[in-house]
Amino acid sequence: MHKRLIVQKFGGSSVANVERIQKVAQRVVSYSKKGYQLVVVVSALGDTTDELVELADKINSNPSEREMDMLLSTGEQISVALLAMAIHKLGAKAISFTGSQVGIITDTSHTRARIIKINTDKIKEGLKNGNIVIVAGFQGVTINQDITTLGRGGSDLTAVALAKELKADSCEIYTDVEGIFTTDPRVEPCAKKIKKITYDEMLEMASLGAQVMQARSIEVAKKFDVPLHVRSSFSKNSGTMIIKEVKNMEDVVVNGITLNKKEAKITLYQVTDKPGVAVKLFKKLADAGVSVDMIVQNVSHTRQTDISFTVAKADAAKASRITKSVAKKIGAGEVILDQNIARVSIVGVGMRSHHGVAARMFGILADNKINIEMISTSDISISCIIEKKNAEIAVKKLHADFGLSK
Amino acid sequence: MHKRLIVQKFGGSSVANVERIQKVAQRVVSYSKKGYQLVVVVSALGDTTDELVELADKINSNPSEREMDMLLSTGEQISVALLAMAIHKLGAKAISFTGSQVGIITDTSHTRARIIKINTDKIKEGLKNGNIVIVAGFQGVTINQDITTLGRGGSDLTAVALAKELKADSCEIYTDVEGIFTTDPRVEPCAKKIKKITYDEMLEMASLGAQVMQARSIEVAKKFDVPLHVRSSFSKNSGTMIIKEVKNMEDVVVNGITLNKKEAKITLYQVTDKPGVAVKLFKKLADAGVSVDMIVQNVSHTRQTDISFTVAKADAAKASRITKSVAKKIGAGEVILDQNIARVSIVGVGMRSHHGVAARMFGILADNKINIEMISTSDISISCIIEKKNAEIAVKKLHADFGLSK
Repeated sequence: MHKRLIVQKFGGSSVANVERIQKVAQRVVSYSKKGYQLVVVVSALGDTTDELVELADKINSNPSEREMDMLLSTGEQISVALLAMAIHKLGAKAISFTGSQVGIITDTSHTRARIIKINTDKIKEGLKNGNIVIVAGFQGVTINQDITTLGRGGSDLTAVALAKELKADSCEIYTDVEGIFTTDPRVEPCAKKIKKITYDEMLEMASLGAQVMQARSIEVAKKFDVPLHVRSSFSKNSGTMIIKEVKNMEDVVVNGITLNKKEAKITLYQVTDKPGVAVKLFKKLADAGVSVDMIVQNVSHTRQTDISFTVAKADAAKASRITKSVAKKIGAGEVILDQNIARVSIVGVGMRSHHGVAARMFGILADNKINIEMISTSDISISCIIEKKNAEIAVKKLHADFGLSK
Repeated sequence: MHKRLIVQKFGGSSVANVERIQKVAQRVVSYSKKGYQLVVVVSALGDTTDELVELADKINSNPSEREMDMLLSTGEQISVALLAMAIHKLGAKAISFTGSQVGIITDTSHTRARIIKINTDKIKEGLKNGNIVIVAGFQGVTINQDITTLGRGGSDLTAVALAKELKADSCEIYTDVEGIFTTDPRVEPCAKKIKKITYDEMLEMASLGAQVMQARSIEVAKKFDVPLHVRSSFSKNSGTMIIKEVKNMEDVVVNGITLNKKEAKITLYQVTDKPGVAVKLFKKLADAGVSVDMIVQNVSHTRQTDISFTVAKADAAKASRITKSVAKKIGAGEVILDQNIARVSIVGVGMRSHHGVAARMFGILADNKINIEMISTSDISISCIIEKKNAEIAVKKLHADFGLSK
């Protein structure tokens, strides 16, 4: 009989200390006893990675990326060994592997490597011998046997890629929250756990500021149709299923509200409205490594227009400097940097089939006397830049009026 | 032109913190600038290994040896990455490898694996590309890609084995002492650093209590005639050369005095003197995992004899219990456990060609009213068990009278 196979991924906070490692072992063994085959992906213990980065920084503030990967990959190696020991202690069979041992082959882009292929022979052999197979997340190896790491959120990626390669029945991402919420519960206590969300919605949520999973892992899950179950490692409750779109999902217009207060807005006034001006500015910014998010340029009836755009707060000063120098060259007007903004977004696949969602959002904000400074829309999301002081009230009103607080 | 190749090994105390790692990097780079090719073997930082063992113990007091090796091998991996970064910081080229990456192939005896073969391709390629090559000590890998460790003193073994395989011109073992001393300087401040010592003498010194190098690495160095230079990582002074015997070495009768206070003596009285009795006792002890060191049985003129032997203090209670039970079965007399003993030994290849060395030793002890309880001799050493309270004075007198204090 075919045994169901689950890939379970536990993040750093789930294995932050001995007690938590023991808890993870108990959960894993309980699944194993229910008859599941298990492949468990683990991150480094708690703050281990940060501590190693700090140690390296004391020695070389600009360390070789190859050596950085050599250093950081030890974090997950420690985790897998300890988890295996904890599982043995409970009387179950387990065997641990590094990314290199498993054969997670990546390209040579150290610190942000991409997985090229995965050899599943060792995992399958381990499972066949009755083991819970434990794999170090976040890491791989080049064909030349150099150790690589997969960048931020890399352990999620390891889990998703293994689930795909092993044709797992399910991929569970354990974290320190209960799942994906309709909005940040710290802002709106009425926020509800979302039972099902599509990959696309989750991607919007992730890129718009929800912290639970990195966009890259969700993209891979979407590409290979790996259903994800995001849930808490501290409770037995179901979390949020991230899946491809199914029919009646569009009945819900808005699935979540996100808030991002980490951006700043720059406005360049009185730009002569002729082709090539915008290009000049945004190429300069790109060359300087500044990532621009929203851009709004009004159609002008005079020969002058204003351009507004947002960047991460960390890049704001640099972006402002560059914009001012461009303004001078092209003879534009004043440049204003505004750090007191917030971006509020609504996300939902239902927008595709429901009309007037944008108007409804703008209406809710207007009813609450919240001025909209910029607007940007995608297929399944609408974002508004508003004054930062109004951010929380905007989230609460949108959450209520789109029926998410029920 | 052939560049001289040196293998340098730095122990845990030499890389215990950021400052010391930087010091090691400076030393290594200075050698590189002098035109040497360098292969550097490093142990885990300071107490890292002990900390990992402690962590594992909290999770499973009887951990799987495979997982223990998975865990402990991270210690050296951290060291090699950090040392590479420190060398880069000084503007020199360096590349680090784990035991697995280098291809230090071992058998499958986890936690005490034996090296089967070493693939030197990666090291040679690294050297050819102008790198200082850094290799994680203490670890290897099975042909099945499982990580192994080499047991206590394993990093020394890595260094010696690499020196042999690479036909290095020299193998330097950096430690926290200046070299091998004629005796423990804490006991006899007149102790002198020995300039040259043979493998055999060093083996006697090591097994008799000198802590600097593990016997196993010296045996391997002897077998393949790898000259070792034991020296301090905190000074530029030459240390002690461990080499094969050369001609005029026998001019010195005694090269060192060792002291071991970690043993206990057990005496079984009134044993019927017939074949098979000793076997019965020592087989029982061996079966219980007790390692017996010295054994003395007097030739008896009656039909009864006494048997004395020494064991490590940690095994003393167990050994005593076993001896009592055997005594009962064979109808022997009393069993006495004596924890207040010390073993003083003199070591020197010169003993082979000089007569009367033993008599001279016994004479020195007698002159100082020190009673000898047991005697054991090898080709190049003589050991006496004496009362513990006389240990230090015995060492001092022997050190002076054999001319080592000059």
